Amino acid sequence: MKLEPQWITGFVDGEGCFHVGISRHEEMSLGYQVLPEFVVVQHERDVQVLHALKDYFGCGVVRVNHGDRMSFRVRALDHLQNVIIPFFHKHTLKTKKSIDFKKFATVCLMMERGEHLAQEGLDQIRHIADQMNNKTSEEL
Amino acid sequence: MKLEPQWITGFVDGEGCFHVGISRHEEMSLGYQVLPEFVVVQHERDVQVLHALKDYFGCGVVRVNHGDRMSFRVRALDHLQNVIIPFFHKHTLKTKKSIDFKKFATVCLMMERGEHLAQEGLDQIRHIADQMNNKTSEEL
Repeated sequence: MKLEPQWITGFVDGEGCFHVGISRHEEMSLGYQVLPEFVVVQHERDVQVLHALKDYFGCGVVRVNHGDRMSFRVRALDHLQNVIIPFFHKHTLKTKKSIDFKKFATVCLMMERGEHLAQEGLDQIRHIADQMNNKTSEEL
Repeated sequence: MKLEPQWITGFVDGEGCFHVGISRHEEMSLGYQVLPEFVVVQHERDVQVLHALKDYFGCGVVRVNHGDRMSFRVRALDHLQNVIIPFFHKHTLKTKKSIDFKKFATVCLMMERGEHLAQEGLDQIRHIADQMNNKTSEEL
């Protein structure tokens, strides 16, 4: 299955999620770990679409999400910064998901600069993450 | 907002629905009405995408679905047969939604031929409709 960029953009407008997780991690100097991830979830019957996304981007993993749902997920900052984010900068999302994407790209850039390792940067990222995928957008 | 065919295909792979409703209708000779519809539902914050779909296809309506959800909907058999179905024949869906689409196209063709007005055709359509958008796919 060969995917075209506009198909991917349309599919991600519908099914994709740009998420920034912040979780306790004792080994981090500030006690928290920032985990940005790009994820697309599908019923297992459409797992071939997730593999096609993985093949297209040349990064990420296809895993069981929960139950009969599978996910294509990219977490490596290097792959997010050099593959995923440039793709969606070039092929603009048409739904309001584009707003989450911009915030996501900001957080990844801050992490690349190491700003998440200082309290001020971590606080800024927490503030940005709080505004993403809010209840209203999760309901979609 | 200008849409490209591949974006539409990707978005509909995620968010679209091909549905055949069969409901009681006393004025129909067999007592039932067959109602095929193509529908895309979005949160009201993305209503501009639904209007862009309406503009692209040049048919259908944008309406409140329920609560804060809006829908773009095409029900007219003429528009389904001459606009929507040819589009998705040309731009093939990549998920298993393509199976629902093929069944949907079969039902619309049967209706164009008037086969839904005879008991045998109506029974066939009911059988096809029962296999579409089953619980498993509705959960997606």
